Amino acid sequence: MKEYRTAIVGATGAVGRELIETLEQRAFPVGKLELFASRRAEGRFLQFRGARVPVRPLEASAVAGTEVAFFSAGGAVSKEFAPLCAANGALVVDNSSAFRQDRNIPLVIPELNGSEVVGRTGIVANPNCSTVQLVLAVAPLQRLWGLRQLCVATYQSVSGTGGRAIQELSQQARSFVDGAALEKSVYPHQIAFNLFPHVGDFGDDGLNVEERKVVYETRRFLKDEALEMNVTAVRVPVFRCHSEAVVAVTKEETSAAQVKQVLRSAPGVRLVEGEDAASYATPVSAEGRDEVFVSRVRDAYPEGHGIAMWVVSDNLRKGAALNAVQIAEVALGLSPVGAA
Amino acid sequence: MKEYRTAIVGATGAVGRELIETLEQRAFPVGKLELFASRRAEGRFLQFRGARVPVRPLEASAVAGTEVAFFSAGGAVSKEFAPLCAANGALVVDNSSAFRQDRNIPLVIPELNGSEVVGRTGIVANPNCSTVQLVLAVAPLQRLWGLRQLCVATYQSVSGTGGRAIQELSQQARSFVDGAALEKSVYPHQIAFNLFPHVGDFGDDGLNVEERKVVYETRRFLKDEALEMNVTAVRVPVFRCHSEAVVAVTKEETSAAQVKQVLRSAPGVRLVEGEDAASYATPVSAEGRDEVFVSRVRDAYPEGHGIAMWVVSDNLRKGAALNAVQIAEVALGLSPVGAA
Repeated sequence: MKEYRTAIVGATGAVGRELIETLEQRAFPVGKLELFASRRAEGRFLQFRGARVPVRPLEASAVAGTEVAFFSAGGAVSKEFAPLCAANGALVVDNSSAFRQDRNIPLVIPELNGSEVVGRTGIVANPNCSTVQLVLAVAPLQRLWGLRQLCVATYQSVSGTGGRAIQELSQQARSFVDGAALEKSVYPHQIAFNLFPHVGDFGDDGLNVEERKVVYETRRFLKDEALEMNVTAVRVPVFRCHSEAVVAVTKEETSAAQVKQVLRSAPGVRLVEGEDAASYATPVSAEGRDEVFVSRVRDAYPEGHGIAMWVVSDNLRKGAALNAVQIAEVALGLSPVGAA
Repeated sequence: MKEYRTAIVGATGAVGRELIETLEQRAFPVGKLELFASRRAEGRFLQFRGARVPVRPLEASAVAGTEVAFFSAGGAVSKEFAPLCAANGALVVDNSSAFRQDRNIPLVIPELNGSEVVGRTGIVANPNCSTVQLVLAVAPLQRLWGLRQLCVATYQSVSGTGGRAIQELSQQARSFVDGAALEKSVYPHQIAFNLFPHVGDFGDDGLNVEERKVVYETRRFLKDEALEMNVTAVRVPVFRCHSEAVVAVTKEETSAAQVKQVLRSAPGVRLVEGEDAASYATPVSAEGRDEVFVSRVRDAYPEGHGIAMWVVSDNLRKGAALNAVQIAEVALGLSPVGAA
């Protein structure tokens, strides 16, 4: 089997580390693995398949021979280096938001539109974490009954911000226990034992960056610019996994019973059923899992059209690293479309 | 000025302690304060106006002379003792859910329907914490434009469950810092660094108790049984204050600009405006405050009718103790209706 010279850009970050683990877990055919990060990380090593791999600063010459590159080092790095890798013939899966709004670049969730990248090289955009789990949960409803509106309130973990935010929450918890003052540098407010509807800067439209991403990307995936989307993105004191309280409003009449029937076999989705403490996913229970957990599916308003659900997924797995690796698998023909 | 022989039933609980503090802060005309709790608390003392007040077990004979009683010791205690106090001529403000669905008993938010209790004795029901802040934020919209639908996702702090839940979150944070296993007894799942859409037991309708309370009480306050309500109640690892992501859908056309104009002078509401980190309330910033903070008011779908907002309030203050004391003030003529 062919093996690919593979690069991870942003290897020391929360998503970068998850990418390394995901490549290993899924036995991705890595020939040589090259890890890149900022100069601060120079001299560090990370483990891959039992070997110590050095972390190097990113330079154009260093990625000349790269065949598959995963970028997760922020938009600026992606804008500079992803086109370079692509020009050299590499498949580039970019986890930043740099290319997500470029209609010439595929934005892909393999279960949904993996066919767009089969046999392809060049840049492919990996969607926003909150978008992936939302779209996988509601796409089956759109296919069968049409979608008029989505009302979404998110409960987003700090790992979506990155390693420094994970440390900030952890350190604030420690200070709380020690009775010390809680210091902050990453977030505008205390995050331990607190939360705020502020995920990225606010624009003139009153939406924050995360809300705008979810609106734009969801409409793009569902190919419906007119989809009515009400999104409130909230950061919560959870380390890992994003949760979403969703009300979907369908065009044709449906019911929670029919929606459950469809979600039982929806790709990438695990339906959790019942009416007790075991009948829904929590961030802690979804940690490290591949699926998008959909639970508490119930009838909502408007009658016959509203469907409420609780959607939880690991933002570093399906929301980032796993989806990225699945994109590469489909693009390289390692995994059939729809079986990601 | 007349002073009232005042009793607090459930004095050692989270709401009970807040009641004592609120009576003191608002200079409520307490003649003698009597504190009651379960037998476990016998022998304890609590501070009121610099004096040590003994906590006694509740007995029928002990409340014979009570003129004003605040109950916050659970539905069973209220059902047994509140009617007794009422029969003796007392004003009873009950913070449990025992009487909230009884149409013969007023359910009161003073800013909204305080006139129902002016000069009254007997039992008055204090609403559910999540309901109070929701209703104060949306009642002005209903009055001007009518309300068709409310879509609400809550972020509820553990103090809504009570003192043992506060200890559980605190203890789990401590265990996390110590690297020890997280133990639980109050909640069905770990609550530190986790959350779950489970506030009270689930019913056959798929709703949990809290969701059912908010639907029922909001419809009762807004006098509209047909109001379409989609509520997801979620417990989060926050000590104090509840937050709500709300989308209100009006019958007549309106806009965020018009809604803000109205909310600037809405009773009990503090509108927070702007588009940065200072432009919204968080649980920590609302702690110990009396107001319902409404922020991030913005246009939502359906166009011309949808209004999104972020509503935060201290669940132990306006959501419980403060509203209860305000009810007593209005009933006893100490405070004019609407000026609570």
